[in-house]
Amino acid sequence: MSKTVKLEQKVQAKGHEIAMELRERFRKKGIFVVNLIGSPGAGKTSLLEALAPRIAGRAAVIEGDLATDNDKRRIEQAGLRAYQINTVGACHLDAAMVRDALNEFSLDGISLLFIENVGNLVCPASFEIGEDIKVAIVSTTEGEDKPAKYPKAMKVASAMVITKTDLLPYIACDVDRMERDVRALVPDMPVFRTAATTGEGTGEFLQWIEAQAAAR
Amino acid sequence: MSKTVKLEQKVQAKGHEIAMELRERFRKKGIFVVNLIGSPGAGKTSLLEALAPRIAGRAAVIEGDLATDNDKRRIEQAGLRAYQINTVGACHLDAAMVRDALNEFSLDGISLLFIENVGNLVCPASFEIGEDIKVAIVSTTEGEDKPAKYPKAMKVASAMVITKTDLLPYIACDVDRMERDVRALVPDMPVFRTAATTGEGTGEFLQWIEAQAAAR
Repeated sequence: MSKTVKLEQKVQAKGHEIAMELRERFRKKGIFVVNLIGSPGAGKTSLLEALAPRIAGRAAVIEGDLATDNDKRRIEQAGLRAYQINTVGACHLDAAMVRDALNEFSLDGISLLFIENVGNLVCPASFEIGEDIKVAIVSTTEGEDKPAKYPKAMKVASAMVITKTDLLPYIACDVDRMERDVRALVPDMPVFRTAATTGEGTGEFLQWIEAQAAAR
Repeated sequence: MSKTVKLEQKVQAKGHEIAMELRERFRKKGIFVVNLIGSPGAGKTSLLEALAPRIAGRAAVIEGDLATDNDKRRIEQAGLRAYQINTVGACHLDAAMVRDALNEFSLDGISLLFIENVGNLVCPASFEIGEDIKVAIVSTTEGEDKPAKYPKAMKVASAMVITKTDLLPYIACDVDRMERDVRALVPDMPVFRTAATTGEGTGEFLQWIEAQAAAR
């Protein structure tokens, strides 16, 4: 085994250890944690904005981005407490970043935490950050073949949310194929077809999350 | 300096060396190489399909994806020679992958090579693969704040192509802001507004590429 591989494994083991500590900490506080993974512009923040009125007061959001605090401000505008992590180049959130965020961001009084990962359908799939579940977010405008082309993100996810279904009349995207392809990777994958602009499917998605939290 | 950082630098130095060898090889053959960087579903392949009739016979495409040969087949259907690299998990193409591809993929008779990187607006920005220029591809449907949120990809690019302008009537996206934001990072950045479905702006983009190739 090369030195690089050994060191990488050491770094990943440390990350796993911090993630396990975070998970323990979240559980003790009774907080269910959802790690949202999707491409830049997949509609992760818009989905949270659409859910906000129904989870205000009991949910918070940690935002991950290379740069800007745009998403934090959007989430606060929508009525939820939010904290922004800027990774300054890093292509994914890691457990240490989330642990550091918790030094400044209180989770008192909440039972649901969304962590919106850096916009990237590849790298975030390989890192644990203390979450209970990962959810893969894929927009119709990215094209129907994304579940097949990004299999790792699908395999680590507990559900897939298809966003931007309101744009289907204007684009060529076979949503049934997206479902078929993701179920070829994960046979029982729950799939939600949503549109943040109309709220379509967001209630079902929230219901499902709450069932997961209750069943934990 | 930690061992990890040192080893990373060693790996990157090796990648740089191979990239320089590739560049030399491409120049000797008179081939201008464009590395396309953008999110999953940004419209990189569609842009190449739109250009295909105008560059058939003198251009070829190397496709990078985690999985599937969908894009290779689409490019061949559009009339260009194409080669598919599957990175099987890796979040970007590296120079060694391109070098290996050239063992199986002949570049005889072409003067223009597009390398479509893995769909990822973060990691591919940090790796040289023998290209003359990088071009950042950002779709209107990803939202207007992507240039500001993914600054590294913008800074390493020689131009930004905005895709899917045909969808502007149906979405909220301030394209002027995309241009302003990218020029705050790179003052003279050429920006092309394109739609693969109508061909809008693709001629101007191709003209610009050919001017870059001529001026090399």
